[in-house]
Amino acid sequence: MAAQRVAVVGAGAVGGYYGMRLAEAGCEVRFLLRRDYEAAAAGGLRLSSHLGDLQLASPTIGRTAEELAAHGPVDWLLVGLKATGLEALPALAGPLLSAETRVIALMNGLTIEREIAALLPGCEVFGGMAFIGVHRGEPGEILHLEFGALNLGHHGDDAGQLAEAVALWEGSKVEIRPEPSLLKARWEKLGWNIPFNGMCVVAGGASTETIMSTPALRETAHRAMREVAAAGNADLAAQGQAARIDGEGLCERYLTMTGGMGPYRPSTVLDFIEGRAMEVEAMFEAPARRASELGVAAPTMELLAALVRELDGGR
Amino acid sequence: MAAQRVAVVGAGAVGGYYGMRLAEAGCEVRFLLRRDYEAAAAGGLRLSSHLGDLQLASPTIGRTAEELAAHGPVDWLLVGLKATGLEALPALAGPLLSAETRVIALMNGLTIEREIAALLPGCEVFGGMAFIGVHRGEPGEILHLEFGALNLGHHGDDAGQLAEAVALWEGSKVEIRPEPSLLKARWEKLGWNIPFNGMCVVAGGASTETIMSTPALRETAHRAMREVAAAGNADLAAQGQAARIDGEGLCERYLTMTGGMGPYRPSTVLDFIEGRAMEVEAMFEAPARRASELGVAAPTMELLAALVRELDGGR
Repeated sequence: MAAQRVAVVGAGAVGGYYGMRLAEAGCEVRFLLRRDYEAAAAGGLRLSSHLGDLQLASPTIGRTAEELAAHGPVDWLLVGLKATGLEALPALAGPLLSAETRVIALMNGLTIEREIAALLPGCEVFGGMAFIGVHRGEPGEILHLEFGALNLGHHGDDAGQLAEAVALWEGSKVEIRPEPSLLKARWEKLGWNIPFNGMCVVAGGASTETIMSTPALRETAHRAMREVAAAGNADLAAQGQAARIDGEGLCERYLTMTGGMGPYRPSTVLDFIEGRAMEVEAMFEAPARRASELGVAAPTMELLAALVRELDGGR
Repeated sequence: MAAQRVAVVGAGAVGGYYGMRLAEAGCEVRFLLRRDYEAAAAGGLRLSSHLGDLQLASPTIGRTAEELAAHGPVDWLLVGLKATGLEALPALAGPLLSAETRVIALMNGLTIEREIAALLPGCEVFGGMAFIGVHRGEPGEILHLEFGALNLGHHGDDAGQLAEAVALWEGSKVEIRPEPSLLKARWEKLGWNIPFNGMCVVAGGASTETIMSTPALRETAHRAMREVAAAGNADLAAQGQAARIDGEGLCERYLTMTGGMGPYRPSTVLDFIEGRAMEVEAMFEAPARRASELGVAAPTMELLAALVRELDGGR
């Protein structure tokens, strides 16, 4: 098989990390950069990671999709935009698309694949849920702190499509977990993001360690998690899917995992601390609204959604 | 009856307001001032109020209790300190006390009268729960925005003592509501403070209007209020008192009252916004702990206590 051609649009910490791992594995990867363009042009891209450092000395980079499209269309588009900036996707990605281009959303949000499918009609869309602790460092540099697995699902839950997306990562350092039900996987991811991104913001920009070590905060996170699992299961049932979230198992797994993470600040917290827009709608309001539509009691989800909305715009 | 001699210690907005209203009614009132001393010495004390403006051109003021004690001891001591500064009370008030001096705590806190009784042994202690919207303005100026009634109780629930404290305010513009059970009154006051001071802080320094107009925030405030009422009733029962809080009535009254208040920022919120210590222990942690001791489920109280503790020190 010829080297797969990949473009990363929204090459922040998450997009950048996974793009670099594909480059490391032999894909022909192009990065659409803004903040980091000058630094990457001068010194390449660097990844500092407990799974192995990596330097791409002369990565293919561009400031516009047109520049990147000079090399032809791509087979895969990794989208690492923030949900709040999704409407820019057609302009950022359009020139890179062919009839065969497939899109992997490395983004938060319950309905993000549906939105991308509407913005890029004709593309097969996949959801990539990154369980990873990763931050941007100096320009041109990505700091990988923890974890790194990518849960992958297909927007239509097509097993053949999913197998091809999984195959893209073969030989890379990324552990891929195929998700037969994308909806289930999205709710499970929210089961971490809503409690921890939410509580860390509401506690004033705290770390996961603060939440885990303060009984009332940990309990509230746990309550939110149970509500998300219940809402997810109601949603799966409403959509005729047989898959179900093991709520208790999920809680135990996430609480154990997070307890061992140290003082990690999720992306939303960094947005909050630095005064950037938070993913309020995609991560909090849409799921809370869906829970309400489904008749699932979700007071903690609603509280976090309302507080994060109120706190949006920074401390 | 000779004019009652009154000293106000901790003459912030609340202490200053009630002291000025006693002066207006003919009491001989002395104010212990720090920030406002120079301005009051030069231009007196001014009150801007919908119940009637007031100017005290030459108030008796001092920077130390010794200065104020040059006029002899007082009959009544109004204490308007923040709970976080209570340990300074003996030094601030000692020289003003005689064997007959009675103390009215215009302060927040479930156990504040017990603490004052321990700090000033031999004094009769009263609790004054101010339902008032009042802020400090320019130095020497107090801005009275809303309400103004004072709920008064005696630390030992002695009816005769209470009647004398009520009589102090006769002829003043202050509406006095005698409280036969101080414990009940304290819990009722917390039933407003915990939800609204707490939620306004947690929502990033919001006003009561934001809480009331955001369904999930109002619902959470309501939940906290119900928890406080339940904890209060358990406490009353545990202490052998017959008095009970009408929880539903209290909620309805407070929600209606607060809905009509406009965008008010409680004192704790101003502390938060300006980076001053908040009354976390007195207003949040002690009541949550008491609820827990009594076996009353109070997850919302606990959450607010933990979050306000986390946010203490300012935004």
